Amino acid sequence: MINKLMEKISKLQAPIVVGLDPMLNYVPEHIQKKAFEQYGETLEGAAEAIWQYNKGIVDAVYDLIPAVKPQIAMYEQFGVEGLIAYKKTIDYCREKGLVIIADIKRGDIGSTSAAYAVGHLGTTVVGSKKYKAFDEDFATVNPYLGTDGVKPFIDICKEDGKGIFVLVKTSNPSSGEFQDKLIDGKPLYEHVADKVNEWGAMHMGDNYSYVGAVVGATYPEQGKVLRQMLPKTCFLIPGYGAQGGKGSDLVHYFDKDGLGAIVNSSRGIIAAYKQEKYASFGSENYADASRQAVLDMKEDLKCCMK
Amino acid sequence: MINKLMEKISKLQAPIVVGLDPMLNYVPEHIQKKAFEQYGETLEGAAEAIWQYNKGIVDAVYDLIPAVKPQIAMYEQFGVEGLIAYKKTIDYCREKGLVIIADIKRGDIGSTSAAYAVGHLGTTVVGSKKYKAFDEDFATVNPYLGTDGVKPFIDICKEDGKGIFVLVKTSNPSSGEFQDKLIDGKPLYEHVADKVNEWGAMHMGDNYSYVGAVVGATYPEQGKVLRQMLPKTCFLIPGYGAQGGKGSDLVHYFDKDGLGAIVNSSRGIIAAYKQEKYASFGSENYADASRQAVLDMKEDLKCCMK
Repeated sequence: MINKLMEKISKLQAPIVVGLDPMLNYVPEHIQKKAFEQYGETLEGAAEAIWQYNKGIVDAVYDLIPAVKPQIAMYEQFGVEGLIAYKKTIDYCREKGLVIIADIKRGDIGSTSAAYAVGHLGTTVVGSKKYKAFDEDFATVNPYLGTDGVKPFIDICKEDGKGIFVLVKTSNPSSGEFQDKLIDGKPLYEHVADKVNEWGAMHMGDNYSYVGAVVGATYPEQGKVLRQMLPKTCFLIPGYGAQGGKGSDLVHYFDKDGLGAIVNSSRGIIAAYKQEKYASFGSENYADASRQAVLDMKEDLKCCMK
Repeated sequence: MINKLMEKISKLQAPIVVGLDPMLNYVPEHIQKKAFEQYGETLEGAAEAIWQYNKGIVDAVYDLIPAVKPQIAMYEQFGVEGLIAYKKTIDYCREKGLVIIADIKRGDIGSTSAAYAVGHLGTTVVGSKKYKAFDEDFATVNPYLGTDGVKPFIDICKEDGKGIFVLVKTSNPSSGEFQDKLIDGKPLYEHVADKVNEWGAMHMGDNYSYVGAVVGATYPEQGKVLRQMLPKTCFLIPGYGAQGGKGSDLVHYFDKDGLGAIVNSSRGIIAAYKQEKYASFGSENYADASRQAVLDMKEDLKCCMK
């Protein structure tokens, strides 16, 4: 799957992943209205609204991008109904040929990490039958519990050529509170990066490992160092656009071939119609605004791809 | 809710939380058979089996214990159907008057943590209506992203008197890989503990904060130090029983009044009937074995309560 992701990035010349992170207030009025007419102002109605909203965006952009990254929290906030919309979104993205990066940031003791890995990336056995429960391609993983919280993901990834992205340096303002603390002269996130190298060697693709790293766009100096430390690691880069990062900041997150990284934009794409720049599309044409925002992002990232 | 939890612990003289972490191979044959007859060997059938299994255990032990701790991964492995069983379990435990500690180990950038907090501990707004999506009482939270990944949970907890337990020192074998790294002469987990003190001050109950700490039973020396560092913090202690911890190791996790801590046992209680010690109950009476295991655990922890 890491090979497929890299091929798609090259072919489309778009190191872009669209973050399908729907908030109800992003969803245009006409979609909310229709969903609420059908299901009432209920969790089911909200779930229908975000699903229809997602579908519109996916239809408008799927030919331009290699991957999507649904943030499961945005679905979990609507309970089980939200997770039904999450699953519908995943299945629809798969039909459209997109690589699915589940932004779930799970991580626990070994047996529990194994259960998460089974549910999201692996195979659930029920009696004599086998099922794919959520069936995404990649998942984001939190490293705080160390190797035995991460390795079950890698073991299960090996079964079907799936992968993970381990949080190394996150994009949020307080990410440095623990991640930047110096240990033996280097920050914690670099110690995590060393482990990512070790873990990555356990499951290599053609040119990159199935074990990638989350490295925020908002810390370009750190990104540059991490690129040097992690030559075989694909970077998943959050924090572009709405969180502040821009293309020219990201050149050094890519390797010398202009590969090895994929940049996420969520709000900047899916709620583009709410920005002044794309306001002329109108909320009825929100998906066209999203398409234009993807094209603009592709242009902005050209400097990274060589 | 932290006050309620502390009162229940004192009243029942049982600093015990039962980890409702069902694996399908824990579920007695007769329950699996019945569920599969009804729903087939499907994810729905598996979900029905774990729900009936949980219900049996809750019925057998609810009068002895203050709280349960469902580990959401064990439900997520069965996809949406598993999460329906998770929600049924929560609702049933609430009916029985139990405090519900959701072991979800979530944590993300601010807006995403807020979405998790809303879904699990807060109120989801849909148009003019308000809903409780999952509606647990406490959630476990991963601190790797720093304050802005934790504070949204605290803000939302304040609305309804709910709480969190922040991972400080986890019980797994490799927890030290990052958590024990020395920073300015003290381990990372103590730096996290300092933040737990700060965060805890934002949301205090009568004697303890609504912001608790996860401190593994498997590291008694560290537990003792953390107890001294965190006088107003309730400890949630995993790693007892099946993971190796025992009551006499835990005395120093409790404060001088014999309070301020709650010990989790999962497999040791819910799959007690599989242990040689409780084998005479037989799988048909698995819930009675669980009840006996709770009584034995209560006895083993007497030394901690003063």
